[in-house]
Amino acid sequence: MSQKPKTAISPTREENYPEWYQQVVKAAELAENSPVRGCMVIKPWGYALWENIQHLLDTEFKKVGVRNAYFPLFIPKSYLEKEAEHVEGFAKECAVVTHSRLEADADGSLVPASPLEEPLIVRPTSETIIGEVYSKWVQSYRDLPLLINQWANVVRWEMRTRLFLRTAEFLWQEGHTVHATQEEAVAFTEKILHLYADFVESALAIPVIRGRKTASERFPGATDTLSMEAMMQDGKALQSGTSHFLGQNFARASEIKFLGSEGREEYAWTTSWGVSTRMIGGVIMAHGDDDGFICPPRVAPSHVVILPVIPKEEQREAVMDYCAKLKTELEGKLYFGLPLRVELDDRDIRGGEKSWGWIKKGIPLRVEVGPRDMEKDSVFMGRRDQGPKEKNSLRRSEFVDTVESILDSIHDALFARALAFQKERTQTVVSKEELYAFFEKEEHSGFALAHYHEDPEWVERLQSDLKVTARCIPLEQGEPAPCIFTGKSSAPLTVFAKAY
Amino acid sequence: MSQKPKTAISPTREENYPEWYQQVVKAAELAENSPVRGCMVIKPWGYALWENIQHLLDTEFKKVGVRNAYFPLFIPKSYLEKEAEHVEGFAKECAVVTHSRLEADADGSLVPASPLEEPLIVRPTSETIIGEVYSKWVQSYRDLPLLINQWANVVRWEMRTRLFLRTAEFLWQEGHTVHATQEEAVAFTEKILHLYADFVESALAIPVIRGRKTASERFPGATDTLSMEAMMQDGKALQSGTSHFLGQNFARASEIKFLGSEGREEYAWTTSWGVSTRMIGGVIMAHGDDDGFICPPRVAPSHVVILPVIPKEEQREAVMDYCAKLKTELEGKLYFGLPLRVELDDRDIRGGEKSWGWIKKGIPLRVEVGPRDMEKDSVFMGRRDQGPKEKNSLRRSEFVDTVESILDSIHDALFARALAFQKERTQTVVSKEELYAFFEKEEHSGFALAHYHEDPEWVERLQSDLKVTARCIPLEQGEPAPCIFTGKSSAPLTVFAKAY
Repeated sequence: MSQKPKTAISPTREENYPEWYQQVVKAAELAENSPVRGCMVIKPWGYALWENIQHLLDTEFKKVGVRNAYFPLFIPKSYLEKEAEHVEGFAKECAVVTHSRLEADADGSLVPASPLEEPLIVRPTSETIIGEVYSKWVQSYRDLPLLINQWANVVRWEMRTRLFLRTAEFLWQEGHTVHATQEEAVAFTEKILHLYADFVESALAIPVIRGRKTASERFPGATDTLSMEAMMQDGKALQSGTSHFLGQNFARASEIKFLGSEGREEYAWTTSWGVSTRMIGGVIMAHGDDDGFICPPRVAPSHVVILPVIPKEEQREAVMDYCAKLKTELEGKLYFGLPLRVELDDRDIRGGEKSWGWIKKGIPLRVEVGPRDMEKDSVFMGRRDQGPKEKNSLRRSEFVDTVESILDSIHDALFARALAFQKERTQTVVSKEELYAFFEKEEHSGFALAHYHEDPEWVERLQSDLKVTARCIPLEQGEPAPCIFTGKSSAPLTVFAKAY
Repeated sequence: MSQKPKTAISPTREENYPEWYQQVVKAAELAENSPVRGCMVIKPWGYALWENIQHLLDTEFKKVGVRNAYFPLFIPKSYLEKEAEHVEGFAKECAVVTHSRLEADADGSLVPASPLEEPLIVRPTSETIIGEVYSKWVQSYRDLPLLINQWANVVRWEMRTRLFLRTAEFLWQEGHTVHATQEEAVAFTEKILHLYADFVESALAIPVIRGRKTASERFPGATDTLSMEAMMQDGKALQSGTSHFLGQNFARASEIKFLGSEGREEYAWTTSWGVSTRMIGGVIMAHGDDDGFICPPRVAPSHVVILPVIPKEEQREAVMDYCAKLKTELEGKLYFGLPLRVELDDRDIRGGEKSWGWIKKGIPLRVEVGPRDMEKDSVFMGRRDQGPKEKNSLRRSEFVDTVESILDSIHDALFARALAFQKERTQTVVSKEELYAFFEKEEHSGFALAHYHEDPEWVERLQSDLKVTARCIPLEQGEPAPCIFTGKSSAPLTVFAKAY
């Protein structure tokens, strides 16, 4: 006889973390693999989460003067080739368009026809095509800074894909800015990193380490890459947003020049920065539990689900009426700048099944309302950050009046839990032996902090011995110290981890 | 000596309408041709217009229960082939992905490598790939209706392109719904047409004729195509949105079947519907004048620009301070559900140049503020629906208090003007001679209404003799009458026009 699992998701995180992840994505109806290899279908519940992320980030972008625009999906092969490191980084896995028509062959089956003079690459990122356009837009220092973002799809032909984390096609935003001076471009690169990190902490409830990539981990063509690294519940790092200072590399490749205020022609300084649907993978892995997804309230597709409890058919109308009024009342309230999003689940299925469905989907608040609650003018509330059976009766008016602060307290609890987990799994190590011991001791290891000067030999050894990489050099640094591998003096403290 | 043109745009609409259009798009900084053949760059001012269109439409979609999702960019060739008319309609011009890598050849230049087993088509529309996914999602009548939309880019390899109107890549939304009964699917197709048409009239200030396509103009694979047709200022029709009843054609092609409430397995009924960035071309051509773009207020990227007038340098601070306060005050107001969008143009260029720049961009309201206005606590206001020199002095408080109704009156004026133009250029004709005379009499002809039964010979003749097509059979019909071409009885009244 098979025993019913005690948790809604099987396997649990402990039993098999990668498989747990796939099962949560499925049970929460966030996304699924499509019939096209490597491409995903983002389902309505997952897409609504992305829309909320877009809305909040877009509002922040606009506050710092960034405007949206849209650039072509296709990049001529010759453009990609303009920056040597860049083409090296992207040519190995890209979708190549070679024909512009399908035509019936002798057998009547359709084959590609009308070959293009020059192949086109489906954008893996848009520095080169946007650089070409900017070279015409930027003429004088008066045209600067140029601060533009696009929301778009991109394609990188990944061989091993995982929903949200690594897919051939994904959705993202890519900002591309042009500045008159190096100082201004560097400052803007940092401003965006902090904008990203503040967003991830305040909206997604995920603590991050703000840092700088080592040379071997930089974006292909960048002078400096800033990133934020978050710890997942298996102790691995997820890079969830990067901001690149591109120096004059792309300005030279695309001839972005301007006439300075003193009449001299100069190359401009550019930046680029992006976050993608990968972030959703991070949210799942940072907060989810063995009962499914836990959605941080500020980006939740819906905040509250009302579950009518109808013991007798003749009570249906009264209960539904009460629930509908509660829904309207809640929808009149604002949370995080937008109207509260409320579901009323009137499906004709068993109450337990219904409730578990919403737990797996990670909705922050479940509210049961039946005749007995109505008599007391109260609701029976469950919070997703607490156990499925921990439910409280609240006066209806109290619930309505305080729902925003209840949601905030869920946000705070999720953040505190994730931060405690990160701190517990982070250790400073002072020798290579300690570093090896840290990563060899168990499967789910965490972050090791060590003083380090990047060294090609050690990049290679750490990767092959431990599958560990230097994730970032935190922006906040104490005193430098000798490198634990090479003994070279004045090495900054660096975060090491296994990574997604 | 060259004479300065009397209008900001040269040529005028009268002189050369197609070239006037290109010049308006350029002068208003809405979009430009990209270095990739057939693909456009949508510039920030044009993209903001699209964002506002998206926001308003998306809100309406959600009100009728539609949720957003995202499906793959690529469609396997075999999927496209599943529906015969469909592949016929799209195979002739499509972007075909054949390789997944670039590799250096003997000369060191990069060439496509790693050929795909099956070519992928960049989606020209997504019925086939979404149908495949739906065939798994839909199992029982309880899963219906399924109402989903996606905002996405699509590619059709058009040979002759024009910014917004016809480009290889464009942005759109495509809704795809599944229903249990024919009646429900037909009703939903109609509901969306009216949603579209109400939006175009109430937000874009463009009057449209709601109708049904004749068989030869239907979407490839559709049973019935509803469309809205708008008249441009050259008398041509622009189809600015379509809603298709697909019958069971795509359900059969993709095996979308469900178990009915009585336990019988049945094919489902599907619909699809879309509007695209083409709509922006319609807005330009419906409202623009010889001074540039005129943006309908409810989707305007910005509603008001404040233009500080600073005769003496020592007055700068006081004027700028006054203007900044006015901006803050205006931004606190709501228009059409969103905060008022206000620009303060403090660029250091001549006032005339500045003002003309905003006229060409089509901003609904310009407000000049100088020391003399400040003394009277008044502003000097110009409306874009009126001549550039027709400006009025208004008390500041009156302007702030009534700005929403001023914007509404601009909307009403634009709509009334477009409707009067459409009526003036629409004529009922009762014989083929009259129809020929109507379209031969001048370049900018308009709409001819005639009773008509579609006939392949006449489709061909009207196209070759007059470049005229049947645009739609209006939903509102009077008494039928004999066809003016064939004499067959009971022909519906049909709109004929030259079309974009």
